[in-house]
Amino acid sequence: MLESLDLDAKISKEAYRSARDELDIRLATLQRAVRDAGKPVIIVFEGWEASGIGTSISRLLAPLDPRGYKVHNFVKIDPESLYYPPMWSYWVTLPANGEIGIFDGSWYRRAFEAGRGGRERVYEQIRLFERQLTDSGAVVLKFWMHISKKEQAQRFKKMEKDPAQAWMVKKGDWQRHNQYERRLKRVEEALTATSTDYSPWIAIPSHDARYAALRIGEEMAARLDAALESRVKRTTPRLPALPKVDPLGRVDLRLSMEADDYQKKLSKLQKRLFELELSIYVPRIPVIIVYEGWDASGKGGNIKRLVAGLDHRGFEVIPVGAPLGEEKTHHYLWRFWKHLPKGGHITLFDRSWYGRVLVERVEKLTPEADWQRAYEEIREFECEQIEAGAVLVKFWIHISKDEQLKRFQQREQTPHKQWKITEEDWRNRAKWDQYYAAVNEMILRTSTESAPWTVVEGNQKWYARIKALQTVCEAIEKRIKR
Amino acid sequence: MLESLDLDAKISKEAYRSARDELDIRLATLQRAVRDAGKPVIIVFEGWEASGIGTSISRLLAPLDPRGYKVHNFVKIDPESLYYPPMWSYWVTLPANGEIGIFDGSWYRRAFEAGRGGRERVYEQIRLFERQLTDSGAVVLKFWMHISKKEQAQRFKKMEKDPAQAWMVKKGDWQRHNQYERRLKRVEEALTATSTDYSPWIAIPSHDARYAALRIGEEMAARLDAALESRVKRTTPRLPALPKVDPLGRVDLRLSMEADDYQKKLSKLQKRLFELELSIYVPRIPVIIVYEGWDASGKGGNIKRLVAGLDHRGFEVIPVGAPLGEEKTHHYLWRFWKHLPKGGHITLFDRSWYGRVLVERVEKLTPEADWQRAYEEIREFECEQIEAGAVLVKFWIHISKDEQLKRFQQREQTPHKQWKITEEDWRNRAKWDQYYAAVNEMILRTSTESAPWTVVEGNQKWYARIKALQTVCEAIEKRIKR
Repeated sequence: MLESLDLDAKISKEAYRSARDELDIRLATLQRAVRDAGKPVIIVFEGWEASGIGTSISRLLAPLDPRGYKVHNFVKIDPESLYYPPMWSYWVTLPANGEIGIFDGSWYRRAFEAGRGGRERVYEQIRLFERQLTDSGAVVLKFWMHISKKEQAQRFKKMEKDPAQAWMVKKGDWQRHNQYERRLKRVEEALTATSTDYSPWIAIPSHDARYAALRIGEEMAARLDAALESRVKRTTPRLPALPKVDPLGRVDLRLSMEADDYQKKLSKLQKRLFELELSIYVPRIPVIIVYEGWDASGKGGNIKRLVAGLDHRGFEVIPVGAPLGEEKTHHYLWRFWKHLPKGGHITLFDRSWYGRVLVERVEKLTPEADWQRAYEEIREFECEQIEAGAVLVKFWIHISKDEQLKRFQQREQTPHKQWKITEEDWRNRAKWDQYYAAVNEMILRTSTESAPWTVVEGNQKWYARIKALQTVCEAIEKRIKR
Repeated sequence: MLESLDLDAKISKEAYRSARDELDIRLATLQRAVRDAGKPVIIVFEGWEASGIGTSISRLLAPLDPRGYKVHNFVKIDPESLYYPPMWSYWVTLPANGEIGIFDGSWYRRAFEAGRGGRERVYEQIRLFERQLTDSGAVVLKFWMHISKKEQAQRFKKMEKDPAQAWMVKKGDWQRHNQYERRLKRVEEALTATSTDYSPWIAIPSHDARYAALRIGEEMAARLDAALESRVKRTTPRLPALPKVDPLGRVDLRLSMEADDYQKKLSKLQKRLFELELSIYVPRIPVIIVYEGWDASGKGGNIKRLVAGLDHRGFEVIPVGAPLGEEKTHHYLWRFWKHLPKGGHITLFDRSWYGRVLVERVEKLTPEADWQRAYEEIREFECEQIEAGAVLVKFWIHISKDEQLKRFQQREQTPHKQWKITEEDWRNRAKWDQYYAAVNEMILRTSTESAPWTVVEGNQKWYARIKALQTVCEAIEKRIKR
């Protein structure tokens, strides 16, 4: 891929000027079109040291409206990011719909530097990441700025002679320069492995800065044109047939517990979880607990008992409702990436990313292809958390339709519980069967070995609380022993 | 204040239990009421080491819905926060309307540790901060957990004997213990100076943990009750009479510049600003540039020329529109605190916090008392930035009503400019006189010596761009020489 590049490519000053002026107008127009279409644009710049990345970014931005782009520098690693999965820093800085995010340094640093053993998996994670983005309508552009070893040496020497630039060439740069051939092989491998039809690499011969600037601008214009005409491929969800089983139907809702037994187990388990909270801190294990369940299934009370014994510095509860503001103008997983626990902390999600295949499906808030694709995206998202060392526990608190009715009526009749019941609860209840099918499908499609669903028998709240506490304790213990 | 506390106050186990159960129900009910009323609640815990802050927070939270509170730990200083004004960390973690934010360690650390010279100003900043919060409807509760020197020594010794707790008592704790008397004086002074009618300190005798827990809960319940009945005082804006002057009327809109002169000055100033961008980095000077102006006054084009020569890693442009999502459920200044530049960086606000006294006033989006109070709040906000070392430049780009009409018509007739003109622009234009009065008042009330308005003669865009660039360069140079 890189060896076939014509590094002698160049362009005269005059030809450049006239082409450039036209291109600038085109790019400014495209930026507005992209904003109106609400497409996020992600532009990655990678390349050799001294290949001119900084200048190229400035040149590319010159015709654009600065209110619509942001440049992110990922050349150095932020120590904070080490407490999160590798893709975290990039997810949380993704541009909003209609905006342009430029990544000076990117998730490819990891690909270029990974050891032989882990490389394939890193490539895979990158492909998944970029596929998730482009599937949601984002445009991903990746430029590799290429210069020869000889050219790099000449540029370093020239910089060293200029007092204003000399400090920029460090000892490490020459060391890396001496490994040019070995690094070239790595880069070749990584670019090949991550050049996909939805997000191909564009290698830019960069000996001539004018030529490089023009090529980058032209490639960007062409890509934005294609995206606006929806010529960019999206993955069609391929869902295997569902087995003819009824996970919810198998739940034994008669399970219950006596008061004495409950009180004893509760305080014992709360103490145990508190000790586990302390013990995840040093090994920096993140713990993610997802609560899903029917309205009035007792999620709130269950969560309250789960955190009651914990040190408040170690956990956070995130209530999840309809997305608002920035959440609405980003990928649907973005807000959950933003709320992931830092290593050593516990985050409880009261409702979660599963809204995509539950409420968004049943209420038809999301096109079918999008929520169908979500099963795989969610499996991938959860897999990334687990690979990064997280404990992930997912609860579906199950109650019978009769039990729900009983609780709704009770709430209506108890003054201090009336706030808990709204019109919306009754509307949701009317769609019980549709939700039932959606929950069953969710469980079947997203229960994986490393991230299984725990269906909690919820007709009796005491039983449900003890089961949740116990499940979380065991999951953390299993992870610590690993 | 602290010496008169009855440190022997205690309560029996039985009395505690029955009082506590009732209080828990009351607090849970109040939490919901506060959520429904959309009031943010801010609770500060400060006190002596080993006074039981951690336990008290856990006890206070026990009856509450964990989905509605967050605990923030500010016992240690985050190094990142040193690149921002002292109040930044606290502003950006403020709870949303209806939520509870608990601060374990707070902005008072600075008050307790400030040297004699700076203390008064720190107190003043804290009073302003809390006044701004309570004026916007927030409830601020501050607990000082008090124990005697003797009690502290006993607790340290007891902890040292317990293998599970021994590590918690550090050498520094004993050193601080030995300075108890000196520190007590400091604390007394700080608490007295920052106990206001809108946010009084509550000193809690903490020798008996049960007594302390009950008192904290009761104080909180009483305070929330008062807030819900709006018995908390808000500042009435006191606006001095406006002088009979017309700042906008004095602007000479005939000022203009020749093409040659413009081009020469433009590239010279862009280079100068680029050099200044480099030179603010090491001394970590933040630069804040505010653009306000009439529709079609040329803000966008002006900003574009201002940043054209800059290194993209050093600046950011923030377009400001109507608040969305989280921005809507926080204090109106919150989103601007969130976007402040880190020391060494430049942030350009395309429209700003002045929306409070312009569009929100004219369009009646905000009650009169609130936007009238904003003049002082904004002066205080800007003063905080400047005290923390920032450069602050504020532009009002002025054009005549005729010039605006000409530009609107031009935009409608030029195909590639039509996107720039909407119905809203015409609607705003119809209110020209109201905006004119609001702008004049804004300039008169918020032009201070350290943060003056620069009214830019905008009928000719070249002239306006050069003036803006020049003003920014000079402001940075003046700051660097300081």
